[in-house]
Amino acid sequence: MHIPQAFDVDDSTNIQTFIKNNPFATLTSTIAHKIVATHLPIDCLQDGKYYGHFARNNPQANISPDEEVCIIFSGPHAYISPNMYVSDFNVPTWNYSAVHCYGNIKFIEDETRIWQLFQDIVARHEGEMGWQLPDEKHYKNMLKFIRLFEFEIKSIEAKFKWSQNKDNDDIIAVITKLKTSGFHEAAACMAKANDLSNPR
Amino acid sequence: MHIPQAFDVDDSTNIQTFIKNNPFATLTSTIAHKIVATHLPIDCLQDGKYYGHFARNNPQANISPDEEVCIIFSGPHAYISPNMYVSDFNVPTWNYSAVHCYGNIKFIEDETRIWQLFQDIVARHEGEMGWQLPDEKHYKNMLKFIRLFEFEIKSIEAKFKWSQNKDNDDIIAVITKLKTSGFHEAAACMAKANDLSNPR
Repeated sequence: MHIPQAFDVDDSTNIQTFIKNNPFATLTSTIAHKIVATHLPIDCLQDGKYYGHFARNNPQANISPDEEVCIIFSGPHAYISPNMYVSDFNVPTWNYSAVHCYGNIKFIEDETRIWQLFQDIVARHEGEMGWQLPDEKHYKNMLKFIRLFEFEIKSIEAKFKWSQNKDNDDIIAVITKLKTSGFHEAAACMAKANDLSNPR
Repeated sequence: MHIPQAFDVDDSTNIQTFIKNNPFATLTSTIAHKIVATHLPIDCLQDGKYYGHFARNNPQANISPDEEVCIIFSGPHAYISPNMYVSDFNVPTWNYSAVHCYGNIKFIEDETRIWQLFQDIVARHEGEMGWQLPDEKHYKNMLKFIRLFEFEIKSIEAKFKWSQNKDNDDIIAVITKLKTSGFHEAAACMAKANDLSNPR
């Protein structure tokens, strides 16, 4: 990913928090030189590892453990009009965060482990008071139709592009206008990326 | 993209409307067998063609016109808990829309045409009363740092996965719960994908 220095993120805690908050990812790989992609949740569980699953009849469910794949995590984004700044001579742009993780897919075949991992994945999304995976035949049969995998990350590129190259007055003006336009998530990302608790 | 029949979309008007409403895309290609991606707006202009631009120092700004790229358009998405249905024996899933467009990048080198196209792109995002691209040297100099391209689409895969394989009572229950949880855009996508003006 092309990442100008102002938008380059290398704080691993910051990146992991972003992934946990935006688990719905795009898993890209190539099949016969053609790029293919699946949209799916990738969950970081309490062991610190990343897990996902394919429908078994998805062609990507046969990815080799040796093949490098790229999983793209995206978050809130917003069009930024030059009218949103207080300064002059700006151009339209788009603000966003994106994390590209390169690594390998390791399918898990042990049924007991698969069942436990699915319980953990469900618990992560549902919370303590939510739906729980029933320990019964109907649900265990459904596992035949999916392939669970661990995603072993080898390298990460992270870009949080939230006008960090602009002056503080511009940043505050854009955040205010994002909020008044209803883009509250984008406004929050922009405030965090610019560390507005410590104004420049 | 793996697309079960219930979620397969081939209506070109429907797909084009989705792209126009969700122009912030992910352009994927390969460089030395590694998948790379840029997040950028792709705009369908009044000529019916699709345009985008790279920073000139983005490695993808040298994509060959013969190389097939995949541009991914994404829209609202939402986690769907089994608790959101009225029926039993459901599992957690994620609902979403995604359009994968395969085609070629044709860079535009004619300065007059580039200037006109940027005016059209700005007008599309800003509307009639918004910011206009000033016809002056400062802005024309900035064009040196970017490469504008037309994206010639050769094939499209479109998946709108909004529980179309469920009964009407379940669909209505999920839409209601998405709305009460604040997922209004996802609720609207789900209502449209299930054509709730003509209940089954």
